[in-house]
Amino acid sequence: MKQLTIEQTADYLKNCEDVHILIHRSPDGDCIGAGYSLQAVFRLLGKRAKVLCADPIPPRFDYLMPKEPEEDFAPKCIISTDVSDEKLFGSLEPIYGGKVELCIDHHVSNLLYAQNVLLEPNAAAACETLYKVYRAMGIRFTEQIAMCLYTGIATDTGCFKYSNANADTHMYTSEIMREFPDIRYDLINREMFTVKSRGALQAEMLMLANMEYHCDGKVTLVWATQDVCLKSGVDPKDMEGITSISLQPEGVEIGLTVREPEPGLYKVSMRSAKDINVSALCAQLGGGGHIKAAGCTMTDCTRDEVRERLLAVVRTAL
Amino acid sequence: MKQLTIEQTADYLKNCEDVHILIHRSPDGDCIGAGYSLQAVFRLLGKRAKVLCADPIPPRFDYLMPKEPEEDFAPKCIISTDVSDEKLFGSLEPIYGGKVELCIDHHVSNLLYAQNVLLEPNAAAACETLYKVYRAMGIRFTEQIAMCLYTGIATDTGCFKYSNANADTHMYTSEIMREFPDIRYDLINREMFTVKSRGALQAEMLMLANMEYHCDGKVTLVWATQDVCLKSGVDPKDMEGITSISLQPEGVEIGLTVREPEPGLYKVSMRSAKDINVSALCAQLGGGGHIKAAGCTMTDCTRDEVRERLLAVVRTAL
Repeated sequence: MKQLTIEQTADYLKNCEDVHILIHRSPDGDCIGAGYSLQAVFRLLGKRAKVLCADPIPPRFDYLMPKEPEEDFAPKCIISTDVSDEKLFGSLEPIYGGKVELCIDHHVSNLLYAQNVLLEPNAAAACETLYKVYRAMGIRFTEQIAMCLYTGIATDTGCFKYSNANADTHMYTSEIMREFPDIRYDLINREMFTVKSRGALQAEMLMLANMEYHCDGKVTLVWATQDVCLKSGVDPKDMEGITSISLQPEGVEIGLTVREPEPGLYKVSMRSAKDINVSALCAQLGGGGHIKAAGCTMTDCTRDEVRERLLAVVRTAL
Repeated sequence: MKQLTIEQTADYLKNCEDVHILIHRSPDGDCIGAGYSLQAVFRLLGKRAKVLCADPIPPRFDYLMPKEPEEDFAPKCIISTDVSDEKLFGSLEPIYGGKVELCIDHHVSNLLYAQNVLLEPNAAAACETLYKVYRAMGIRFTEQIAMCLYTGIATDTGCFKYSNANADTHMYTSEIMREFPDIRYDLINREMFTVKSRGALQAEMLMLANMEYHCDGKVTLVWATQDVCLKSGVDPKDMEGITSISLQPEGVEIGLTVREPEPGLYKVSMRSAKDINVSALCAQLGGGGHIKAAGCTMTDCTRDEVRERLLAVVRTAL
């Protein structure tokens, strides 16, 4: 494994041909923005490139999709963006595992599984790192590339709300907006951060009604489980974005949200309001992630057991 | 009335002595950040300055308050920041009306009531304009000034979410963060945009449960009325910040939120999701504001009449 600099990565990309770009399962704005901006950059250079993801890209990201059809071809080069662990290739792991030539990522938990790695743990988003790579390559941005990068940066920072949004993040964002002042960033943000389906609003109401407070109100537990999905009519797969409720009550340090994509499969999102490292807590439960936003999975247990296991670990940190 | 440039305003401020700084009633992050940063700048110059507001500053802004006690003195100069209309001085209007020497504002609806006006309708926040003024004055920022300006810019843009956040907004923000990297901007944002009291969450639940959809779902109407306050235990005065619910459902163009700070007094917040000018709509009802966020007041009418009047005006815009 070789760690690359921004400049080395720029040189590396110029020499790639016929690229398959892998992004993580349950794709979010950052990996989608990263993958499709990189595809667009390769196409600008006259090269073939294709983005691959184990799960479908949610329709709210349609505006980031290329207008030109995607063609099939055998890859000569395999690159992953925003993927900290090959497990996150999901159903594509058996095909691409152990074969990634270059990984571009910003997760401090990256397992360095690729032959070459550009890892910037201080970057707010993989798209922030890619912004610098494209600049180093001398790429002239298109509107689509600008929208991809803005979307990745905005979504991974909670619209510039979290601690990962720093002076650089705002500077690169400013430069993107200066070059493309007519993109409707406000409508992108509305779509990413504000708009909810009526079902999702109904689900939110139910989750608020049943929110649990533990540890003197320092821990909240929100159940985004099958019963909530049934009552609200929301597909369990669409419950991904609802982790933000748990940190709303004043005084909360750790917010826990338990989704149940399949009956009995519990996916826990752990969020830190201030300085508690929830990545370390989730690691104790076999999971991982960022310092302030991590997750783990539990199965073969009851809801009461889920609660017990979570609170046992969480209490050690308070 | 004379319109001033940034540079002329900088010169003007250098020559002010014993300043009363007026901000608008129902103070928000922008006018508080503007007023208290200006006070801090005067104090750096060894001058006396005092911020005056008809309403108390909410405790969540305590971190912006000066550490030095505020002294009483007769003003030699009266300045207003972020106040588009003398009416917004509230109970202070009889004392200060017609006497403002300098108004620094960014509302396109500013009535130009002051002798000198620095008006930047394209600035995202009064704090964005003041940032430029302080730079032109050659002021060396303190942490308090940086926090005031950041708070004003962040709150008036919905944390960089709205269309008023542009390349300049992000550039100035980047410059502030570069100079003061250790300020916990994430905690400011959490306090401003995320944290809610348990009562407020309860109120939100009730408002979601009773949200009305009109005009094929293009208009929502949220009642933040006395009954909601009673059931949730939230003080009607603390219902100011809850206008964001109305624009959440997908497909909404105009979101209406009706607060009732006193029984029978209806304060309407009108929000535009995309391009409808709600300032013009509110003007038809005796109100005003920004293009995408405006308001008006109704009294001596029933809730049914409030709904009727609002929908009659709103329908003309769809």
